[in-house]
Parts: sequence; structure tokens; C-alpha cells
Amino acid sequence: MNHQKVMTSYLLAFIEGLKTAGIKKVVISPGSRSTPLSLLLHRDQDITCFIDVDERSAAFFALGLIKATDEPVAIVCTSGTAAANYYPAICEAEATNLPLVVLTTDRPPELRQVGAPQAMDQQQLYASHVKRFVEMTVPEASDELLRYSHWQGLTNSLHAQQAPKGPVHVNFPLREPLLPDLAMKAPKYTSSTIVPSQRNVDISLLRPLLGKKGLIIVGEQHDIKEAQHYLALAEWLNWPIVGDPLTNLATSQSSTHYLKQSDLIFSETTLQPEVILRFGRLPVTKNVLLYLKRVHAPTILVESAFSWQDQLQTTNYFIEATITEFLRSIQQATFTKVADSWITAWQQEQELATKVLAAQPLLKEFNESAATVALVNQLHDSQLFVANSNAIRFVDRLTATNPNRVTIHGNRGVNGIDGLLSTTAGIAANQAQPTFLLIGDLALFHDMNGLQMMKQYQLPITIVLLNNNGGGIFSFLSQQTLAPEDFTPLFGTPLDMDFQHVAKLYGAQYHQPTSLKDFEALIIAAQQQPRFQLIEVRGTQKEPVDLWETICQEYQLALGDTHG
Amino acid sequence: MNHQKVMTSYLLAFIEGLKTAGIKKVVISPGSRSTPLSLLLHRDQDITCFIDVDERSAAFFALGLIKATDEPVAIVCTSGTAAANYYPAICEAEATNLPLVVLTTDRPPELRQVGAPQAMDQQQLYASHVKRFVEMTVPEASDELLRYSHWQGLTNSLHAQQAPKGPVHVNFPLREPLLPDLAMKAPKYTSSTIVPSQRNVDISLLRPLLGKKGLIIVGEQHDIKEAQHYLALAEWLNWPIVGDPLTNLATSQSSTHYLKQSDLIFSETTLQPEVILRFGRLPVTKNVLLYLKRVHAPTILVESAFSWQDQLQTTNYFIEATITEFLRSIQQATFTKVADSWITAWQQEQELATKVLAAQPLLKEFNESAATVALVNQLHDSQLFVANSNAIRFVDRLTATNPNRVTIHGNRGVNGIDGLLSTTAGIAANQAQPTFLLIGDLALFHDMNGLQMMKQYQLPITIVLLNNNGGGIFSFLSQQTLAPEDFTPLFGTPLDMDFQHVAKLYGAQYHQPTSLKDFEALIIAAQQQPRFQLIEVRGTQKEPVDLWETICQEYQLALGDTHG
Repeated sequence: MNHQKVMTSYLLAFIEGLKTAGIKKVVISPGSRSTPLSLLLHRDQDITCFIDVDERSAAFFALGLIKATDEPVAIVCTSGTAAANYYPAICEAEATNLPLVVLTTDRPPELRQVGAPQAMDQQQLYASHVKRFVEMTVPEASDELLRYSHWQGLTNSLHAQQAPKGPVHVNFPLREPLLPDLAMKAPKYTSSTIVPSQRNVDISLLRPLLGKKGLIIVGEQHDIKEAQHYLALAEWLNWPIVGDPLTNLATSQSSTHYLKQSDLIFSETTLQPEVILRFGRLPVTKNVLLYLKRVHAPTILVESAFSWQDQLQTTNYFIEATITEFLRSIQQATFTKVADSWITAWQQEQELATKVLAAQPLLKEFNESAATVALVNQLHDSQLFVANSNAIRFVDRLTATNPNRVTIHGNRGVNGIDGLLSTTAGIAANQAQPTFLLIGDLALFHDMNGLQMMKQYQLPITIVLLNNNGGGIFSFLSQQTLAPEDFTPLFGTPLDMDFQHVAKLYGAQYHQPTSLKDFEALIIAAQQQPRFQLIEVRGTQKEPVDLWETICQEYQLALGDTHG
Repeated sequence: MNHQKVMTSYLLAFIEGLKTAGIKKVVISPGSRSTPLSLLLHRDQDITCFIDVDERSAAFFALGLIKATDEPVAIVCTSGTAAANYYPAICEAEATNLPLVVLTTDRPPELRQVGAPQAMDQQQLYASHVKRFVEMTVPEASDELLRYSHWQGLTNSLHAQQAPKGPVHVNFPLREPLLPDLAMKAPKYTSSTIVPSQRNVDISLLRPLLGKKGLIIVGEQHDIKEAQHYLALAEWLNWPIVGDPLTNLATSQSSTHYLKQSDLIFSETTLQPEVILRFGRLPVTKNVLLYLKRVHAPTILVESAFSWQDQLQTTNYFIEATITEFLRSIQQATFTKVADSWITAWQQEQELATKVLAAQPLLKEFNESAATVALVNQLHDSQLFVANSNAIRFVDRLTATNPNRVTIHGNRGVNGIDGLLSTTAGIAANQAQPTFLLIGDLALFHDMNGLQMMKQYQLPITIVLLNNNGGGIFSFLSQQTLAPEDFTPLFGTPLDMDFQHVAKLYGAQYHQPTSLKDFEALIIAAQQQPRFQLIEVRGTQKEPVDLWETICQEYQLALGDTHG
């Protein structure tokens, strides 16, 4: 596809997004850089264009359109001070909550800060006065980038309309030549196409989907009470439900609809849903993500507050509701539940995964993986903070459900390893339950000063240290293919740290069990008599990788036997 | 003084600053909030005012004034979107380097974000498009605040004129009633009054001062070569020179003009300079700061690049020059040196201070203070990183000069204690000289992970740990007067850390000498055979405070004897 068609497709996808979000009127101030966007909007039969040569006036004119109709309006201008002229009206829109979508066009990155004429910094141009600033990427026309462009047009325009309403700013870097292909129709791509309902659950839209073969995907941290609502929803709909350790679906109570071994199951399953119901962001589980990229089904995204964190950009129905609100609406709706054969098929795969894991001899020996499984099995009425990188993946992949009111915590907002001990200390300082931290050596080192808080406030925290001497996570990732002279210093990063000294330094009891039995005994004792202690489990960076590969192969074989 | 007079004085002082910086023309767009500033500018006989009711036009009109005359111009407007209308011209001024001084007026803080009419966020309103944003404080009329207001008018207008020239933004919160007292004259206050020369040393202005009784104050980090230029300057002018450990004046070579014990000397001296020559920011030495606040003399500030970091806001002559450029110009000037009696008087005070310190029995025992003195005395051809809080103050107050090419480093930009080990490691990784770090226990704890870098790159760093179990610095400060139940948990903050375990953890040799002789032997050995080691010196938080108070009293007595 040539430059002209690529740019045209990309902008048409964006315009489709605008229209889906309810944009019907656009005020254009002519200029050169904005040519393709202006022309395509001008030719669009669903859009009414107004032309105002003065950008200051144009933006205030748009405010009038919004005031009269209570509908969102977009404004388009060229690069340079043209965009600065929008500022007074943007401040007014901010103060009076008017959904103004500001579309500025700009030189592409390679022509910035090199003295190109009319090039000025348009990043964050309106400072704190817009609800959101987005810098678009330079036009591309892959399915993924068209979906991205559409999604930006859709979600930013919706964001402007979310309470409190206000202006948003989208900046488009565009390369010359600037004339679009006016003969092109909107390109084909997978996309979000249905206007979301806002702040209430519009069951009339969803009802046709409720009796179909559905799949529930839950992300982000949830407490045990919320987790129970999610499980109740799954049973009500008779759909399988998936969620990583932080969702606490696995530890709040038993449910036959919950698929604990999702990383294993979704690596192989051929079951095909007719509808996907997602809550919040995606879980950590990699094979769930790959499965969702592979299958295509109408997707409902539910968020408790509008942020549309849709990494896949495939949402078709957007619902703003808490799980409590959503569950109540579903329970009030009339629909025929999907036949049991749908959930049974998934349950069989879960049972198979359980069997494969139970039969794995390495999980009966003593290593990082086995210790993780044993730890989760032994807990009851406790809280467990699961560190980022390997620890959360081990818990996600290898452990079974444990319905003994164990609350699992983590820092998965931005997945850092820089404050895990300190956060755990904060949790323990606030809770009567025994507290455990499952953490790797690199993450423990990062926040070692957090140990001082545990010592200072005498917090009875049991730290289970998975010590594989460095960045074990990278042995699971593509970096593992590097030669040792690159891998070891940059990713393996052995610390060669003696954690017995660490324990001594901060006055923590230190244990280095040598058998699974001893380890389990320590975990049981820690719940009977909580104390500040460090239990070190020695491992290697490669061991868990080999184990997981073996399990995957065995599951694949077992699945073949079943199908055969 | 009533509200009207306070506001008027404050704004008149600001306007004096504008005029000193060369502002002769102002473009005013009328409005309510800007009333006092507009009226006072309008009445000023040195200022030509233009009135333009449209702010967008006004700002572009100002650009024309600047283009025609190459002189800076100020623009004044009221609050709200009025200010946003300046944006296009500000972007143009930025791109074409025009010195535009943007003066916006605003509601005071208590009327912001509470729904007051026409109130919008004017902080950082022009984002990255101005060289500097300054939020003025609400008008007050103390000498200090009038000087501040004057200084803001002066330095921001100068900043706009510094290469690359460009717009600056000053925002004024003003309270009602807004009418100024038009009968008032510019108030009296100590202030900077002489236009600075830029990027060259205008000796004609300074020559009358060079033969007077002068005092040189050097701040900030300087290497040994620069330090030698400063000392050469002092000898050329026959003036005493003062500078803290980071200036390396005490360790680059011997100079009879350098006052090492400035904290002691300036606490008591009655000598009065006729001119003060300052380089960069002020040194750490507290009594130098208090002395400069007490004495008033024409002040020359020299900076190698314009930033006018004048905490005292009393600069009369501003010179933009490196020490090399400045020294060369002074050496080429003709003037009669001040009589020797001036420097001799200071030298006598330095000798007295040296004698008092040398006679102090506690500095011959083994404690944090004595160890600091011994460390600096024993170094030659080495580098010493001095940590913030107590360590740099001990070195500043207690140590003698050591002209054996010792380079002293520190992190005094913002005085943090969060990265001192890591910075020392970076220095050592780059230098063949033996490296020492003098640091307290709290600062060491803060950056303990920096030890991993020392271990990993096998850096032969000797850490001298002054361990007084917590925040020793606070015992010198006003917090010491608090009751123990408040002081200890909030400021004393004992860590109760066994640093022998820390050394073991990171593979550093550990020593805990028990006598000054043993300590000195370790320092000598560390230079003969550099290695990664931790030398712990145990102390208490109170001890150095008592010692310093004793020394001050003894110096005072000795001084009385001399005068008597």
C-alpha cells in the first residue's frame, strides 16, 4: 500500500471511531498539515463540517454547537500557533465541562526540533487544561494499527463525554505528501463498533448474548468479597471464569466454574466462545492473552469507572458498572442459560490439568516451583503478597485452588520490583492475619530497606525467598536465547548475596529448609506463631523453565490421549 | 501598613526590578485583576505604556516592539482566558528568540479550585513554551519580601534576555481591593540596583571597588585547577577568601589568604568589608551566611552561566564569566591593592582559630569529630567524597588545610542523602586515585544498595562510617529542643543496625578501630593498598554538638584575650 492509501486508511479508521462515539459536527480551520484529516471529514456524509478560518473563533464556535445540542464536537487545525489559538476556548470548555475534541496536526517526529518552519512543540500543548493528551503514532495500515487509530478516535471522544465532561487533545504527526485518496472507503479491520452505555447496565443490548457460550475474564486486584460476586456471576451465566492470583478467585471459595490452570488450558484449548465478558485489565496469564488475540467473539468490557484499558482494542460493548451492580442486573434479566455441555467441556480440561500437575514428580521434590505450590496449599485465613516477575507466574501456573480465605496481594499496577517489601510491611501493619511474602532475590534486593520497616515495627512477616541468584524471569523470555556473555551480565545479573547475613542484619529469623516437608512445617508454624523470618529456597534460573516445559508437554500428551 | 500600601509597595519594587533589567515598554490589556499592576506601570514616568484591548493582538504587538528595538518588552493582562490568548505570540517569541516578559495576574490561592468566577489554573500555563514560569507570592511588604519582588522583576526580565532569548512568565496572585495607592513612591529596601554586564567582564564598572577592603566567597563544587585560580585571585586582590570543602580551596595548595575556619571566624568577627565578591551559590558554612545577612556592602556576583542563584538577593553587580576569564580581566586591570592590614587582621583570626582547635583535647581522643580531622590530615593524592548532613559540616568546621592534592566531592546540588554511595562508586570507577567516603549511618542506610556496585565492580573504596545511630544532624538544629518522645522517633531515628553484617553481606573488609592511632594507621594503609572496606567509627548524636559548642566558647574567650 502506498503512502497515500496508508494515511487515508489510518485517518478513516480514526474518523469511524469519532462517529461511533457520537461526533456529528466538526469545525475546521483550513491549513496545510491538516489537509488529509480536513478533506476526509469534509467528504464524510455523516459529519457536518463548519469552516472558520480563525482558530480562536473556530473553537469558541464549537463551544456554541456543544451548548446548543449537548453533543460532542471536534475541531481540526494545522500545526504551529494555529493550535495555540484554541487555548482560550479550551480553558472555557474545561471550566464549563464541554466535550470538545481537539484534533491538531503536526510535523512528524523527524521534522521536530530541527528548525523546520512552523514546527513547535505540540506535546502537552494545553498543559493541565485538557483531560487527556494523546500523541498519535505516524500512520500505518496494519490491522493492529487501524484498530489502534479507530480506538483512539472512539475512546478519546468518549473520554471527553465522561463526567466531568471536558476537552481532550489528540495530536497527529502527518508526513507529506498530504493529499488523501478520496476514492477510498473505510478500511476493514477488527474493531470496537458499538456505542457503550454509560454508568448503567443496559441489559436490553446484552440480553441476546447471555444465553450463548460465554467466557469470563477477570483482571486486576479484587478482594475476597468481590471475588465471590464474580464466581456467583459465572455460575448464574453457566460460563467458565478465568482470573490470575490477584483476582482472588482461586482463594475465596470453591467454584466448579473457575478455571485455575488457565495458562495450561488456554495454551491448547480448541473451545470457541460466542461472547467474551471482560472485567478490567487482562490477567497476568500469557496464554489467556494469546487466546484472546486468536479467537474473535463479541466482547463486553466492564469497568467500575471509565478508563477503557483495553490492550486488545476489541471491545464491542462497554459497560461502566461495579461487579455488584452488574451481577444484580444480570440476575434480574430473563434469558435461557447455555447448555451444560459448554461448561463441562472446560471443566474436563481443568481436571486434566489438575491431574498432570498432581502427577509431576518434580513438584514433590524441593525446588522453587514445588515450594510455591506447598506454600499456597498450606495457607488458611492468611494473606500472601506475591512479588512480580517469577513469583506471581509460579502461583498462577502451578498452584491449585485453596478456598481457605487466603487474600492474595501484589503490585501489578505497573509491575515494578522496587517497593514490594515496603508494601507488604504496610499491609502487615494494618492486619491481624499472618502475612507471607513470596519473592525472588532480585526483587528482595531492590527494596531491601523495606526490611528495616519490618524490624522497626516488629511485623511478624514470613518472607519466602525464591533465590535463583539473579533475574530468573529472563530465562522464560526471549532473552534466554542470547549467548552467556551477553545474557549473564545484562539479564542473569547474579547478585551472589548471602541472605543469611541479610536476615541477621535486620534481626529476622533465618531458615534454609532442605526438604519440602521441612518447608511445609515452617509454613504451618508461621501461621501458628507468626514471626519476622526469612525462609530461603535455593533454586537455579533454568530449573523452573525446564519444569514448566515438561508440564506443558505432558498436558499436551494427556490431551491427545483424551481426544484420541 | 494597610493592604493597599502593602500591595503597592510590593508591585512598585517589582517594577523597579523590571526597569533595572531594561524594560522600558509595556503593553497592557485592561482587566480587573490586573488593575494595580496596570495603574502603577501607567503612572511610571520611565515606562511607555501601550493599551490593546485584545490580548492576542497585544502580545503580537509586543513582538513588533521587540523586533524594532531589540529591547525586552513586558505584557500585562488580567486572569482567566485573557492569559490563554497570549499563547500564539508566546510560541512565536519562543521560536524567534524574542525577550517577552509575560505578566499575568491571578486570583489568590484561597480563591482557586473553589469555583470562583474567572478562576482557572494559570500555573505552568504556557507549558514548555516559556523559558521559565514563576508563581509570585501574595504581596507582603517586609524588607525581605520587597527585595524578593524586586529580584523577581529584575532576574526574570534578564533571563528573557539571556541567550537563547525568549519568553518568561510571571503570575501574580492579587487580593481585593485592587486599587493601588497612586501617591506612594517606590519603597526603600536593600536591593540589587545595577544592571549586570553580560558574558564579558566590564572592569570599568568594577575598578573603583578593586582597591577596597574586599572579601571573596566561593560556593559550589570546584576542581583543584579552578581552586588554584580562586586562590590566585585572592592573592592578586590581597583579599581573604572563604569556601566550603567542595570548593577544594583547602586541599589544592597552601594559601595565606584562605580562611579555613570560616564557621568559627565569621561567628565572631567584627571586621567589615567594603565590597563582597561572590562566586556561584553560597558555601555550606552557616556563619558565613549569617555574616552576609548582617553586613551590607556592594556585592559582585560572578557566575559562569546566567542563573543568578542569589539566595540573599543583594547582588549589585552581576558578571557572567568563568573564574579563568574573570581572573585574567582582573590581572589586566590597573588598581592599587588594599593595604596589608586588611588581610593581616583576618589572618590573625584564622591563626587564633587554628590554635584553639589544635589545643582541643577532645580532638585528640577517638570520636566522630576527631576521626574526621585525622582522615583529612592523612590523605594525599586521593579523593574524598563527603556525605551530606554532619560529614560535610565536620570537614568544614574542624579540619585544617591539607595542600596534598586531595579532591573533595559531594552531592550538594539538592543535598540529598539518597545516592551518596552510588555516586562515590561512579567516581571510583573512573579514577585511579584511592577513594574515600565519609558518611553517617543514616545516609549509608539510604543508599545501601550502592554497596552492591562497589562489590560488583570490585571498587577499592574505603568507607569511613560515622555511626551515631540515626539522624545526628538534628542535634545541631532547632529540633533538639523537642522532648525525647517526639525527638527520638521523628529525628533521632535510631536504626540499631550492625554494620559488621553489612560489610559481610557485601564482602567489604570491616574494621572498628578503638583509638585515633589505629584509625590513622588504617587510613594510611588504605592509600598504600586500596581495598573495599568499611571503617566504623562509633559516636553519639550529642557528642559532636557539645564539642562544637566548647570550641566556639574557647574561641570566643581567646578572641577576648587578644582584644583585651
